[in-house]
Amino acid sequence: MNLKDKIRTVPHWPAAGIMFRDITSLLQDPDAFQSVCNLLADRYTEKSIDKVVGIDARGFIFASVIADRLNIGMIPVRKQGKLPAATISKDYSLEYGNNTLEIHKDAITPGDKILIMDDLLATGGTAAASISLVEQLGGDVVECGFVIELPDLKGRELLNGHSVFSLIEFEGD
Amino acid sequence: MNLKDKIRTVPHWPAAGIMFRDITSLLQDPDAFQSVCNLLADRYTEKSIDKVVGIDARGFIFASVIADRLNIGMIPVRKQGKLPAATISKDYSLEYGNNTLEIHKDAITPGDKILIMDDLLATGGTAAASISLVEQLGGDVVECGFVIELPDLKGRELLNGHSVFSLIEFEGD
Repeated sequence: MNLKDKIRTVPHWPAAGIMFRDITSLLQDPDAFQSVCNLLADRYTEKSIDKVVGIDARGFIFASVIADRLNIGMIPVRKQGKLPAATISKDYSLEYGNNTLEIHKDAITPGDKILIMDDLLATGGTAAASISLVEQLGGDVVECGFVIELPDLKGRELLNGHSVFSLIEFEGD
Repeated sequence: MNLKDKIRTVPHWPAAGIMFRDITSLLQDPDAFQSVCNLLADRYTEKSIDKVVGIDARGFIFASVIADRLNIGMIPVRKQGKLPAATISKDYSLEYGNNTLEIHKDAITPGDKILIMDDLLATGGTAAASISLVEQLGGDVVECGFVIELPDLKGRELLNGHSVFSLIEFEGD
């Protein structure tokens, strides 16, 4: 199966000139969704991962499946104000303005081997902030995994020093 | 396992007087998370469900696992402005003000048997809006499933006429 064909491209969304890569077309196709779940589970089964972090909100989809398949815990990293117990937070820059991500302080035990999952690697700002949160709590980031990567935006460079994996690349918009 | 013990209660969050039931403590416990996944998969395996709808954002967690376990598609219902392709939308009331949910128009084929999943049934407004969206597209809502239900808030009454299932109840705050 060519998974790339299962990703719908929506031109000029959310702004003019942007080619948005939409995973909902993949999610609603059972064979494509199973294929992604199998590829991710196969990759991470033997890596002794303790917990998988899912990034709010589409990262929850793949992190949850990996947590279920690998019989490990799932930790949400969320936008500011969404987590109810004691948190630490990390600000990061967007193209226009800033955003803040949070994680529960008790979500990670020092030394935990952590996989960070999101649907898409673009500029890497969200993933870099998530790495920072995990490391502040003493976690060891084994890898950042993505379904889609946009290599032109050089997100890997921002995650310098960490292992990065993606299933599908879209280049040269 | 007593799953109820795995839910952390955070008093006075997000506002004074509210006892917030926090599923993140369950998610990070592999045995508890597996138990929830097993119970939901067992319930829905033989119901001939075509697609599972996950409500933004915590509903994605359980809908994704069910989609994976049952080998069916997963459809996100999202807050306004998050879905890139053609959508229909539904406004609903919150305690203060209104909110809007959206679904992609092409996510459901008329006659599809749909399971709607969210983490929590409180007043039922979000679930009722999701039912409306599914039915506008011709889907047949087989059941609304929740991990937690707060019966005092009478959400089931708002979902009158639809099957409702929950794993854990918290009464009498």
